[in-house]
Amino acid sequence: MVRFFLSNINIKSSITKLFLLIFSSSVSVYAETTIYQGDILHFTADPAETNQAYEYTENGGLIVRDGKFAGIISAEDIASKHAKVIDYRGKLILPGFIDSHIHYPQTGMIAAHGEQLLEWLKEYTFPTERRFSKKRHAKEVAEFFVDQLQKNGTTSALVFGTVHPESVDALFEVAQRENMRLIAGKVLMDRNAPEYLQDTPESAYRDSKALIEKWHSKGRLSYAITPRFAPTSTPDQLRQAAKLLDEYPDVYMHTHVSENKDEINWVKSLFPEAKSYLDVYNLYGLNRDHSVFAHGIYLDNQEMKSMAAVGSAIAFCPTSNLFLGSGLFPLNRAEEIKVDVGLGTDVGAGTSFSMLDTMDEAYKVIQLQKSIGNNTGVKTLSPFKAFYLATLGSAKALDIDDKVGNFEEGKEADFIVIDLEATDLMKFRMKSVKTIEEKLFALQVLGDDRAIHSTYIMGDKK
Amino acid sequence: MVRFFLSNINIKSSITKLFLLIFSSSVSVYAETTIYQGDILHFTADPAETNQAYEYTENGGLIVRDGKFAGIISAEDIASKHAKVIDYRGKLILPGFIDSHIHYPQTGMIAAHGEQLLEWLKEYTFPTERRFSKKRHAKEVAEFFVDQLQKNGTTSALVFGTVHPESVDALFEVAQRENMRLIAGKVLMDRNAPEYLQDTPESAYRDSKALIEKWHSKGRLSYAITPRFAPTSTPDQLRQAAKLLDEYPDVYMHTHVSENKDEINWVKSLFPEAKSYLDVYNLYGLNRDHSVFAHGIYLDNQEMKSMAAVGSAIAFCPTSNLFLGSGLFPLNRAEEIKVDVGLGTDVGAGTSFSMLDTMDEAYKVIQLQKSIGNNTGVKTLSPFKAFYLATLGSAKALDIDDKVGNFEEGKEADFIVIDLEATDLMKFRMKSVKTIEEKLFALQVLGDDRAIHSTYIMGDKK
Repeated sequence: MVRFFLSNINIKSSITKLFLLIFSSSVSVYAETTIYQGDILHFTADPAETNQAYEYTENGGLIVRDGKFAGIISAEDIASKHAKVIDYRGKLILPGFIDSHIHYPQTGMIAAHGEQLLEWLKEYTFPTERRFSKKRHAKEVAEFFVDQLQKNGTTSALVFGTVHPESVDALFEVAQRENMRLIAGKVLMDRNAPEYLQDTPESAYRDSKALIEKWHSKGRLSYAITPRFAPTSTPDQLRQAAKLLDEYPDVYMHTHVSENKDEINWVKSLFPEAKSYLDVYNLYGLNRDHSVFAHGIYLDNQEMKSMAAVGSAIAFCPTSNLFLGSGLFPLNRAEEIKVDVGLGTDVGAGTSFSMLDTMDEAYKVIQLQKSIGNNTGVKTLSPFKAFYLATLGSAKALDIDDKVGNFEEGKEADFIVIDLEATDLMKFRMKSVKTIEEKLFALQVLGDDRAIHSTYIMGDKK
Repeated sequence: MVRFFLSNINIKSSITKLFLLIFSSSVSVYAETTIYQGDILHFTADPAETNQAYEYTENGGLIVRDGKFAGIISAEDIASKHAKVIDYRGKLILPGFIDSHIHYPQTGMIAAHGEQLLEWLKEYTFPTERRFSKKRHAKEVAEFFVDQLQKNGTTSALVFGTVHPESVDALFEVAQRENMRLIAGKVLMDRNAPEYLQDTPESAYRDSKALIEKWHSKGRLSYAITPRFAPTSTPDQLRQAAKLLDEYPDVYMHTHVSENKDEINWVKSLFPEAKSYLDVYNLYGLNRDHSVFAHGIYLDNQEMKSMAAVGSAIAFCPTSNLFLGSGLFPLNRAEEIKVDVGLGTDVGAGTSFSMLDTMDEAYKVIQLQKSIGNNTGVKTLSPFKAFYLATLGSAKALDIDDKVGNFEEGKEADFIVIDLEATDLMKFRMKSVKTIEEKLFALQVLGDDRAIHSTYIMGDKK
């Protein structure tokens, strides 16, 4: 009876829990179990490596118990479970999207016109980031940012702050309240940036350490040592970053690499001791298992191999790469070399918070390689691979695939519900799609935040 | 008094007119005049050629009288006009968008996966177009198509039908009812296509002629002789097309050129007599003043010059060019050679009906040219140029700039009202933009159909 009662009123989960605590003696173990009924899709492997990479259960039940996934069952078996059922029939249930590279302080400067990377940083980014020394401003932007993630179905992200520790505090406070699996860190930057945005090797070490102690592994939060990119850190600062990673081996390293041709030449002149851009990070001990490098457009095979060897990852950010005119990421080559790749929006150089838009542009970046460059035999990006990249692929890139990324039993229940008929055009298009593959592709091309019907974090609806 | 009464109730314009007819003796001449108050922007020239290309009136009044524009006045002068005032303060009023290349029969196959041009035609397009032999199906798609145009703020377009005359009838019937300035034609295709989609030189001539007689210059409709592209028409059919253009000099010619490298090689092998792809159209008399060629990505200088010489135009379709991986249109070079360029969505190879999305992708296509190819000194696409292309630029490309494309007095009152805060992210971003240039750019990057608050055609709200 209690179970039945709970299933029919719409109350906040925290209240539910309190209620269950009070009446726990009279409540069955199923009272904390909810079954989400709909078309359930998730990935168990990389579609580039196997044809059995996904599991699709049309009209199935996704079981969530105590904020964790507890299996997928057929519609026929739902009734026998005596659990609360949420009816999403006709809708698609996917793991929450995971954004493997994004700058939250750049939320308000998305769509800043006219430049490529280095000028864009100078003209727009640095002045914008300056304001994050004020905690109040940082908090305001962090609130909006996290709300945008959720509205776009993104439940986890690897996030740049600014040089100011306050920026990280603000973001983590919001993410903690929302119970989101979020990785972030303060930027390290002690040269080639405005005075007002610089730290020092010592303060970088000290402030990062304090933030690690304060936030790392607190609930679902993790910390990332975050040198902006090689040109804005002295060798001394890079060494301090590596020292922290030695002290905290499960902390992340998050930076940029090989995004833009001018940038690469600049790195060469700043670090004559390195054989390549990536080699700077090798030399200073920053290319590791928990390292994530945004972009990597111009990485050569040797560089990619050294990443694959240590288990570091690339965040592929197509809307940004097109917006800044940086170039076309060679996803096919990364697949061959088996370096981990996640998908990132890279807001604010990226032009959308939506991982759907990001998949749409990723497809275009690959398509273009069929007509540009020496990339004969380029493999089209399949919708399966695109949705893999946005979920399990990014989870693997961020080394959180033991906790999130698909519906494996015991993983944290971050998932989203997709309305495939969210707009008139989607509705019209869906009339003539037949397979789940076609549905996914139409969704990535035509969908945006309107297609995200609901976002659940650890089983809580946002 | 009557004027006051009319300005305060919300009735259909046709009823208004009837009312005015009945009470005409007691109504002032201003009764048919409406003033739309808001931030008014339109173009008078190409921003690539002059710094005085646009007129921006913040909080102005756009006067519409009998379906035509009748001037722009300041807010202070509005009251003295004794006209009905529609309050769009805080919103942006622009000329309706003009889509210079789109295929209405492909509406339902937008987002078809995985191919480049020639395979994509065979796999998806031809089977889809087959269904348009049925008038009922054609009408259903035409209704949806026109509705999508209007919801995306597009008030005019140059449209491909299918090979079936019925497809054109269906579209023109809807466009006529909606009073839209639309140019369309039946496809000519007598080889290298499935039997079920082929016509003959004779039937192409006969059917097109009948459609011209039936629809051309009826109200706001115009006809375009529409060979799909050189490879699917025999020389004989191309000659028949030219014969029709000789007979009807103000009829349009609408086709494709130089979109894809394989296509170009194919054309070379099919037409050994031609010096280049465009030269096929020159040889057979189809490169003329009223000719519009979609894509033109690989046109060389000589080809562009021969277009500039006769006054034909290119429809630049960036979302399609990226989606099919066709290549990067050299807009800068087209500007130097002064060949007319319009902007097109090219649905269904294009991925959106939205000219805003199309501008967003146009920007990216230009940005990419900074890092790809030998295009040193590539000029960034300014938002002014982008919005020019989507309005007056496309009007010039379609030779309808004497009738639409800006707010010049006497032109037909096709205009749209833009909500710059249509989404949370747009609202957040707009807080930090200052100039109209920044507003336009944020709009093109972040905006979609939600930003189109209202669409007016000849002064009638849709």
